[in-house]
Amino acid sequence: MVETFSYDTLFSETSTDTPLNPVAHAKYDFAVAYPAPETLPMDGLIQALQTAVDSDSEKVLAEMAYYPQQLGALELREFTARKLAADRGFAVSPEEIALTNGSGEAIGLVIQALTNEGDIVLAEKFVYMGTTNQLRRFGADIRGVEIDEGGIIPEALDDQITQLVANGEKPKYLYTIPEHQNPTGSTLSADRRKAILKIAHKHNMPILEDDCYVDLRYQGDVQPAFRALDDSGIVVYVASYSKLLAPGLRLGYFTCAPDLMRRALSFKIGSGPNQFASVAIEGFLKSDLDSHRDNFNPMLKAKCNSMVSALEEHFGDSGATWSVPEGGCYVWLEMPEASDIASIRDEVFEQGVGYVAGPNFEADASGRIGNNCARLCFAFESVEKNAEGIALLAQLFKQHGAM
Amino acid sequence: MVETFSYDTLFSETSTDTPLNPVAHAKYDFAVAYPAPETLPMDGLIQALQTAVDSDSEKVLAEMAYYPQQLGALELREFTARKLAADRGFAVSPEEIALTNGSGEAIGLVIQALTNEGDIVLAEKFVYMGTTNQLRRFGADIRGVEIDEGGIIPEALDDQITQLVANGEKPKYLYTIPEHQNPTGSTLSADRRKAILKIAHKHNMPILEDDCYVDLRYQGDVQPAFRALDDSGIVVYVASYSKLLAPGLRLGYFTCAPDLMRRALSFKIGSGPNQFASVAIEGFLKSDLDSHRDNFNPMLKAKCNSMVSALEEHFGDSGATWSVPEGGCYVWLEMPEASDIASIRDEVFEQGVGYVAGPNFEADASGRIGNNCARLCFAFESVEKNAEGIALLAQLFKQHGAM
Repeated sequence: MVETFSYDTLFSETSTDTPLNPVAHAKYDFAVAYPAPETLPMDGLIQALQTAVDSDSEKVLAEMAYYPQQLGALELREFTARKLAADRGFAVSPEEIALTNGSGEAIGLVIQALTNEGDIVLAEKFVYMGTTNQLRRFGADIRGVEIDEGGIIPEALDDQITQLVANGEKPKYLYTIPEHQNPTGSTLSADRRKAILKIAHKHNMPILEDDCYVDLRYQGDVQPAFRALDDSGIVVYVASYSKLLAPGLRLGYFTCAPDLMRRALSFKIGSGPNQFASVAIEGFLKSDLDSHRDNFNPMLKAKCNSMVSALEEHFGDSGATWSVPEGGCYVWLEMPEASDIASIRDEVFEQGVGYVAGPNFEADASGRIGNNCARLCFAFESVEKNAEGIALLAQLFKQHGAM
Repeated sequence: MVETFSYDTLFSETSTDTPLNPVAHAKYDFAVAYPAPETLPMDGLIQALQTAVDSDSEKVLAEMAYYPQQLGALELREFTARKLAADRGFAVSPEEIALTNGSGEAIGLVIQALTNEGDIVLAEKFVYMGTTNQLRRFGADIRGVEIDEGGIIPEALDDQITQLVANGEKPKYLYTIPEHQNPTGSTLSADRRKAILKIAHKHNMPILEDDCYVDLRYQGDVQPAFRALDDSGIVVYVASYSKLLAPGLRLGYFTCAPDLMRRALSFKIGSGPNQFASVAIEGFLKSDLDSHRDNFNPMLKAKCNSMVSALEEHFGDSGATWSVPEGGCYVWLEMPEASDIASIRDEVFEQGVGYVAGPNFEADASGRIGNNCARLCFAFESVEKNAEGIALLAQLFKQHGAM
């Protein structure tokens, strides 16, 4: 037998023994955070690669054969600049856009460029845990901002900052998902965004705007991006092709002030993002973006409607409330205060329905709020399974005394 | 005019304003670190994607639509396990392999799991700057190990460690590229590897083995991997599909002791590597690995021969020496001691020949050695351009008084 080498005295102080995430799916999987596989335009992406090779093989091969530039593939940055101008109404050059391995990398790089140990960072009271995990890892002290069904409440934000400043705890920056927020599904109105920008300027506080759900709107009017309302550089804009096309493509991007971008990119591990996926995405979207959204979003709408109808039918007299989003992937379910659906999550998962319980999204990580809440992803399962799964969820909540 | 928001007081203490790398190519580009674009099996990769979709569309779509597992796509890990058993003679399960965004990410993750500020890390005296940059970033104090044309000299390594330990400076681990080293082109013999493993065990010092050039051998016998000679866990094995296929695919991997792997993966920013590229690579290599290497490596050999012949013709009576590698991408040129080819690098580049000067690879970063050395990549330019470029290089060195 080989004697096993021991690393016990060799691990770095910053490392932690973190179990790998198991990938398990409930029969009705409302715990995920992505659209359904069948919406993925795989044939279109492959065709786009082939077309790129057929039309200028030398150019495509040269791009693949080189290590990617730090900013990523030029053609996809050019396309992204055109898309931002057309869809989000602000003008940036391809040199002001950096492509990243998903928007998670973009957010992680910006956090590292802005955060010292102990810095206070604001975010919606319930917010995407991928970002709060990164914030905490890089030393941020996160404080949740009051929200209602319209997202961050500007007056509450201003009061909170004033109080923090009075305590010598000036916040460094604000992270927000203004469009179809994760997990609550809310969208900030243009008026609220303008008010929040004023507050941000008053307190010299950048806004890290995570716009990764903007393409997934199926009703109502898109609201102007923070970045479109403010050219000063105070807004860092992050978005992604992961939700519109597929998470497995790992393609996000960000644009911000040039000095911040240089500092953020200096934290990259390895080189730029995948050129192979970049060529496919650019080739597909430059001809098919609109038709893809036109197919995709009505499907999302039908799925959302199916889940919301089932909630009305099965939760209507339970005292629960839920958001009715205009896009994105999530319905936010709030059971009555006394109903603890966090502690029964694993059992309900085993019995067939997956969801992510509220405490996972709590910005302050106090563990004291959100036990009566859950994020339900309506985008992944079919219209039928959304209805069936919600019916089963009601039955299971009753069985566990949570309803 | 919009007033520009200032980040001056907001940047993190760890951030630095690092200019983006410009991508410039000399007419004869021996400064790069990758094979030629025309060797890239782009049609094969696209065909592999199409075949995967045609044969099991649902499975491929499901993989793409999910966020990748931390370890990366299972099929490519299974293929990699089979490849390691067949090509490198050691058995690991797919669960012991983690795919990464290029081998650079793998190396960065392992460095973070093992390195505290000020830790001493050993590496070949001249070694890949991508790794030394990461080592320094995460606080390592790098010390160069004596090498000759056969790579690390075991006796010198043992003496150096003994002296370091006597000074209370026990080294934490050794980083090495044992096969077709970057930049020197050397390969460690099996005997030296066995001797180095003994030294490593004596000093409780893991070996981070970077085997990213192993597939690029066109003559001589492949030497056993450190990992194949030692099952104890003391060896961390890193390799890549970037050199064999294309850097733009961004697919590397590592395998190591399970506790080290969990800690390394906990440093990931964002999720696993690109599923799209993973499906293409696995599909292509499972049928075409051997035929691709059979096409690829004779081409590399012809390119290397052409560069070496041109060196003999134009540098034969200059007092210079150069390595004659059995694979990989690089010839290491050593001019006579007094010849400073580092300081004229930019001018020679402008005049048509690109190379990377020795000091860039110096592990100790003393700036005192390597001014007479250069790494010449023979893999990128054609056979003809390799010959022409070396002739021009001799002419330019003479013009600048370096020869």
